[in-house]
Amino acid sequence: MKKVVVDAMGGDYAPHEPIAGSVLAVKDFSDIHIILVGPEDKLTKELAKHDYPRDRISVVNASEIIEMDESPASAIRKKKDSTIVVGSTLVKKGEAEAFVSAGNTGACMSAGLLKIGRIKGISRPAIATVFPNIKNQTVVLDSGANVDIGSLELTQFALMGKIFAEKVLKKTDPRVGLLNIGEEEHKGSKLTHETYPLLQEMPLNFIGNVEGRDIFKNTVDVVVCDGFVGNIVLKTSEGIADAIFKILKEEILKSRLAKLGALFMKPALRGLQKRMDYTEYGGAPLLGIKGISIISHGSSNAWAIRNAVRIARESLLNNLVETITENVQEINATDEGGE
Amino acid sequence: MKKVVVDAMGGDYAPHEPIAGSVLAVKDFSDIHIILVGPEDKLTKELAKHDYPRDRISVVNASEIIEMDESPASAIRKKKDSTIVVGSTLVKKGEAEAFVSAGNTGACMSAGLLKIGRIKGISRPAIATVFPNIKNQTVVLDSGANVDIGSLELTQFALMGKIFAEKVLKKTDPRVGLLNIGEEEHKGSKLTHETYPLLQEMPLNFIGNVEGRDIFKNTVDVVVCDGFVGNIVLKTSEGIADAIFKILKEEILKSRLAKLGALFMKPALRGLQKRMDYTEYGGAPLLGIKGISIISHGSSNAWAIRNAVRIARESLLNNLVETITENVQEINATDEGGE
Repeated sequence: MKKVVVDAMGGDYAPHEPIAGSVLAVKDFSDIHIILVGPEDKLTKELAKHDYPRDRISVVNASEIIEMDESPASAIRKKKDSTIVVGSTLVKKGEAEAFVSAGNTGACMSAGLLKIGRIKGISRPAIATVFPNIKNQTVVLDSGANVDIGSLELTQFALMGKIFAEKVLKKTDPRVGLLNIGEEEHKGSKLTHETYPLLQEMPLNFIGNVEGRDIFKNTVDVVVCDGFVGNIVLKTSEGIADAIFKILKEEILKSRLAKLGALFMKPALRGLQKRMDYTEYGGAPLLGIKGISIISHGSSNAWAIRNAVRIARESLLNNLVETITENVQEINATDEGGE
Repeated sequence: MKKVVVDAMGGDYAPHEPIAGSVLAVKDFSDIHIILVGPEDKLTKELAKHDYPRDRISVVNASEIIEMDESPASAIRKKKDSTIVVGSTLVKKGEAEAFVSAGNTGACMSAGLLKIGRIKGISRPAIATVFPNIKNQTVVLDSGANVDIGSLELTQFALMGKIFAEKVLKKTDPRVGLLNIGEEEHKGSKLTHETYPLLQEMPLNFIGNVEGRDIFKNTVDVVVCDGFVGNIVLKTSEGIADAIFKILKEEILKSRLAKLGALFMKPALRGLQKRMDYTEYGGAPLLGIKGISIISHGSSNAWAIRNAVRIARESLLNNLVETITENVQEINATDEGGE
């Protein structure tokens, strides 16, 4: 039985959706035990509304909540009984193997770093976001954990992204690309110029520079960038997808015939929405720490939480952390040997 | 009569589409004269297929073409009889007032910089790309001209973007935002931290940090970022919009009813496509040079070229270059006065 902690108070729809998502998860995954963290009374009351195998969900009390707009580092220090601190500490102590939260992203990251701890040799952990592409998925990292980094960090992101794509997205020999403003090697910034030759030297299927549009074309599996750029890619994508659906709705409402057409097209529109929907991927793992931490979108519903647990489970079953640890040690050993 | 040079050999569909677009432009705008640059024989032959007021389109010979994958700076130096060099030189000499090209973006930029020349006081010219939002447009700059820049350049982009939004997009007191990974002032990179207080001091309606998703929400009019980030925003947006339309098509083809629905929805889908279509905006002006240069998408069709001429015309009629020149001088004078 794999033990996964779910932050019952994380996100815009807590505790209702995280709890409903946990119930879905234990029903769908017979090898998962969920530990809900949050105010015990409240959670017990909410849990009582559900029908589920009682021995598969337990509650650990945490009396505080880190709000979405709190400064992460100081919140982690001050709110020692917050769901994010208590949950991450359970993973640190080995009482659970993974943590899932739709709460304050920065706080989840800080807790991952400060409580669960970095893998030896990793300079900076990265948030790996799974994007839909026209055929399956592309993982982009870092998507928000680190700004102002160097080429060492980018090469480590490439390695971790490759392992995640293999182990969790089940891609064979994933294609790794460096996000840039053109495909030619000479294009880009000082940082991409420094990173390009380093990626060429690594045991990776490095396909060179890729552009923003490649993320969605299934021409690359792992896209490497700094957290500033990655976060802007993520938010821009969300923004344009929302705008397209909103404008389409407006255009449909302009004509009766279009409204009828939309009714006929409902399954197709739903298919599109499902394929573009972030809730299908559940959450973004924080890679590079000594445990599994999945950071879910603030507006996660039960299905998103259930899928975040699925990602955590697949990461555990496929030894994601162990594989990253071994590979980093090997690469660092090679680097030292070569010097 | 305003004279606009159109690069007849620029883009994937040259010379057919640039010439057809020029014909559309002289028909739609009675105050525009188009000078086509390219191989005279070829252009004259292609022009003969069209019906248009003969005295409103002329041809200037240019025997060379800068290919899409050529290195811009060296191409500009070597190919002195290329359409981009000849066209930009016409603007420099005052024989025309604007240049429109769907050719090599970097070469258009270099030619703008080296042939037409920077406005005094402007550190780096910027490409301003107009994005559709749910209500009208948002301009993002720089979208590819400059990587590895500093806060001075970003403040100048803000000023130029504001003037473009007022003069060409007809926005009153445009809202200017700094593209960042969160709204709070403390968020972001070293560059955004340095730039934020400078933007607060400027005679702008500075609304603070904005995120990628704001570009499409009509919550900001001018979005300021470096050219690396801006280019990735542009390509990511194109990529996801293409993916959405592609997936929707696939989903529609799965069911007969959906196909019928799509037929009924055709006007709505076309409305959506029109509102998301870059060809409506025609091209991105290179701001900060002593003339008008509009850089169009490589895949521009006649409509896109016609609209690029429209943007050039509106820039000319509303004294875009003169206004930028005056404002930069004022701000530089204030800065010196304050020291």
